[in-house]
Amino acid sequence: VTAKTSSASAHRLLDRLEELGSVGATADGGVCRIALSDADREGRNLVRRWMGEIGLEVLVDQIGNIFGRYPIGDDSPAVMIGSHIDSVATGGKFDGNLGVLAGLELAQTFIERKIEFSRPIVVAVFTNEEGVRYSPDMMGSLVFAGGLSLDAALGSVGIDGTRLGSELERIGYRGDLPIGAIPIHAYVELHIEQGPVLEAEGTVIGAVEMVQGISWTECTIQGQSNHAGTTPMRLRRDAAWAACNIADFIHQLAGDMGGTQVGTVGRISLSPNLINVVARQAVFTVDLRNTDDARLSEAEKRFDAYARDLTQKAGMTLETKRLVRLPPVKFDDRIVALVEEASLSLGFSVKRMPSGAGHDAQMLAARCPAGMIFVPSVGGISHNVREFTKPEHIEAGLSVLERVAITLCIQGGPYSALSTL
Amino acid sequence: VTAKTSSASAHRLLDRLEELGSVGATADGGVCRIALSDADREGRNLVRRWMGEIGLEVLVDQIGNIFGRYPIGDDSPAVMIGSHIDSVATGGKFDGNLGVLAGLELAQTFIERKIEFSRPIVVAVFTNEEGVRYSPDMMGSLVFAGGLSLDAALGSVGIDGTRLGSELERIGYRGDLPIGAIPIHAYVELHIEQGPVLEAEGTVIGAVEMVQGISWTECTIQGQSNHAGTTPMRLRRDAAWAACNIADFIHQLAGDMGGTQVGTVGRISLSPNLINVVARQAVFTVDLRNTDDARLSEAEKRFDAYARDLTQKAGMTLETKRLVRLPPVKFDDRIVALVEEASLSLGFSVKRMPSGAGHDAQMLAARCPAGMIFVPSVGGISHNVREFTKPEHIEAGLSVLERVAITLCIQGGPYSALSTL
Repeated sequence: VTAKTSSASAHRLLDRLEELGSVGATADGGVCRIALSDADREGRNLVRRWMGEIGLEVLVDQIGNIFGRYPIGDDSPAVMIGSHIDSVATGGKFDGNLGVLAGLELAQTFIERKIEFSRPIVVAVFTNEEGVRYSPDMMGSLVFAGGLSLDAALGSVGIDGTRLGSELERIGYRGDLPIGAIPIHAYVELHIEQGPVLEAEGTVIGAVEMVQGISWTECTIQGQSNHAGTTPMRLRRDAAWAACNIADFIHQLAGDMGGTQVGTVGRISLSPNLINVVARQAVFTVDLRNTDDARLSEAEKRFDAYARDLTQKAGMTLETKRLVRLPPVKFDDRIVALVEEASLSLGFSVKRMPSGAGHDAQMLAARCPAGMIFVPSVGGISHNVREFTKPEHIEAGLSVLERVAITLCIQGGPYSALSTL
Repeated sequence: VTAKTSSASAHRLLDRLEELGSVGATADGGVCRIALSDADREGRNLVRRWMGEIGLEVLVDQIGNIFGRYPIGDDSPAVMIGSHIDSVATGGKFDGNLGVLAGLELAQTFIERKIEFSRPIVVAVFTNEEGVRYSPDMMGSLVFAGGLSLDAALGSVGIDGTRLGSELERIGYRGDLPIGAIPIHAYVELHIEQGPVLEAEGTVIGAVEMVQGISWTECTIQGQSNHAGTTPMRLRRDAAWAACNIADFIHQLAGDMGGTQVGTVGRISLSPNLINVVARQAVFTVDLRNTDDARLSEAEKRFDAYARDLTQKAGMTLETKRLVRLPPVKFDDRIVALVEEASLSLGFSVKRMPSGAGHDAQMLAARCPAGMIFVPSVGGISHNVREFTKPEHIEAGLSVLERVAITLCIQGGPYSALSTL
């Protein structure tokens, strides 16, 4: 990594990542700041305080998204930089927080240097990106972009039986700003990769071209419970075996299809789940992803045909429930090119790549030109206390984000045409 | 089924099965009478009361095994008929209870008809056959036969943290009779098959030749937890996939080896067990059984070699822990032949077969000539509230047991040579 000196201060950003990471900190060094919890309120309060201290105009919309705008009162189309600060139960300090705090750092730098661009800059914190407590995930950005009604979002019932709208009021973040009231010129999100590709290839920056399409299916196989000692193999209807055979097929299928196709069976639950009993029932999930929607559909069809054939021949029943189906989302070609160009001009190796995870940027893409910048995750690990991105990579990502933001903020520059979209 | 009229009363036996089944009855029609629980005490009290009422001499040994002897005080080598009355958490009315209550019915019949044989008859109730709460299973019979010391058994710590000896005292069944103090001429156990073979073949009686050897292994695979979207297939170390692939192999292995070989993966536990996370760890169990010890060892070796090779090539680690390894147990040829002969002479179809499940009789076989009589389980189901054996099959089993017991009790008859063993 040849880190160039950025105008913005990586040091200050790293300090803020630590401080925000201490809110909801767990004993093992992780972070638990689940959306609309007390810890989330405390994290929001800290970011809102920072926004105020550096001179941003703080706005909170009806779904609790927080916006910090500069210059104050400028409601012309803005360059929005953001992400989320809610976490999973066993989260780390970087996922989401990096995008928000890098935006804050840039805004502070611009203000301190009295730089004024033709376009306002808005730092955005979107509500409930992780979707741990309330479904769907990426909720705040989805509502902001018009993909889900405010009422549906407020009415979402959490896994703890609470209503999102009530919890939003309870923590004091049910704002007045109407949904989508901030006009946007472009949206950029800096995020950790949450995967191993950049590190494995020794690349510093990912210019994210798209978000993979996602297909989640829950399968329930009904066989017959039997004694593991007294039941000859020919008389069995072993639901555990069928599930395992299908999981193995999913692994092979992804390998055979190649390209960006991935396939995962991450959750399996057997009944009665005893050492000496042939399982009566197996419930398991299949996660399929591809950047190409047609290929993703092909994977779904091949998996479905295989699983139905296998269970039918073995005298078992299969029920499938599609839990999630999101088509791939393409980011704006010009922003992808801009990320690539900024990286190269700053001396960082860069790779065009898809995102395998969902991000707020994919929701914003439905509303404005949007793009993402990835920095390496050590070991590809995220949603884990061991989530870590090296300081030099944080600094590199901040530098690229700054370059991209400056270019986007200069009206009349090569990217001014974005605003006509 | 051509049910012959037995001297013993199947009706009274069926009534007692119902009455004992009401002790520890669950709302769904099953029975939960786990060893040394309050329900077990209540069940024991009922059987002890019945023993006393029909005129048996009741003896309780130091591990809580209950013996009902007739004639009172006759300590010459006895024909012992027994089983257990403890159950699994989701048990039925037949498993174990049938063997004990059939013995009680025979003793009552002999007493009522004032039949006196050359040998005493002893009805036995063995402690903790199921092993749900305290390990090992078949404990009372194992201690009785000298395979486990009394101290080790009393010191067994339950899954609830209790000590077996304390619980035995608490429920009032830590008796005075020294272990193994009852001399035995022969042991016979009537039991439900707990498998589907007799029903599938339309056979009424199983003349059990042996108990299959059992091998239980717990496998722990360590891979690496990763995001299911962002991690390309080539960079994964998916512990769930490895476990599923091995489970599929176990199924194939048992099929390929044929004969009595069976193989089951009945328990799988993934970590973190989430839809969108590649599993870091998989813990699963492998249950292998065969009537031939060499073949069983071969199955163990093939499974172990396959699992080690697969995990090593995939960059994962495998730890295996042998939980149980019991060699096959052969029952006495003469008793097997006697069961077969008795069945045929009573007009019942009979099949020589192995037992795939463990039974007290296999422990007794180390001490005296022993044998078992199986009757069909509807649907092959046991350890389940739906466990059921048809009344006509109960009656058939009782008739065969009676014929066998009478033959064994007549000193100087064709089976008198047993006593010299």
